[in-house]
Amino acid sequence: MKVIHYSQEKETRIDNDTVKGVTGRVVIGKADGAPNFCMRVFELDAGGFTPKHQHDWEHEIFFHAGQGEVWQAGRWVPVRTGSVAFIPGNAEHQIRNSGEGKLTFVCLIPAGAPEM
Amino acid sequence: MKVIHYSQEKETRIDNDTVKGVTGRVVIGKADGAPNFCMRVFELDAGGFTPKHQHDWEHEIFFHAGQGEVWQAGRWVPVRTGSVAFIPGNAEHQIRNSGEGKLTFVCLIPAGAPEM
Repeated sequence: MKVIHYSQEKETRIDNDTVKGVTGRVVIGKADGAPNFCMRVFELDAGGFTPKHQHDWEHEIFFHAGQGEVWQAGRWVPVRTGSVAFIPGNAEHQIRNSGEGKLTFVCLIPAGAPEM
Repeated sequence: MKVIHYSQEKETRIDNDTVKGVTGRVVIGKADGAPNFCMRVFELDAGGFTPKHQHDWEHEIFFHAGQGEVWQAGRWVPVRTGSVAFIPGNAEHQIRNSGEGKLTFVCLIPAGAPEM
């Protein structure tokens, strides 16, 4: 069994043309012996966003803190603390921070997809 | 794609000799077309606890709000907002609320395990 605070995990910082102000952590994954799915925690700075993209695996997302928007079928849908998003495989998606503080969310993917 | 607040999902209330003060919701599951794993959100009232039990599937847990403890290998380990727990298959486990407010956590299980 593993019990940690997410902030204790090694962070990966991503900041380029298509991804802005993103800090990601794999908090439960293959290295922990998780056989079926992987938990990551992402923090987006104010003004930050993930890439607009699609892939054949799904996301199950829980929004832990902050305010944001999810790109869904051609429009931005607002999310906040306690929102949940299911993004099926092959659906175009993007997440952006629309608030003044950090947007923090938990994003799970099936085993086999790239963990970070 | 599905975007909701977790509180909008149908709740199941569990209160008996082995489970006390628990409200559970399946927020992403088979009914949504999730193929590989299932997200549930649980709220434990002050003094509430989940059953002490074990089963052959794993849990990946993110603690969203409140203060609690996880039974791990014969002792109680404290958790708080932002804690993460990986409970492998066949590990005995229990979660209890040790705070004065609600303890809210997100708990994921693989497809095939009972969703609630």
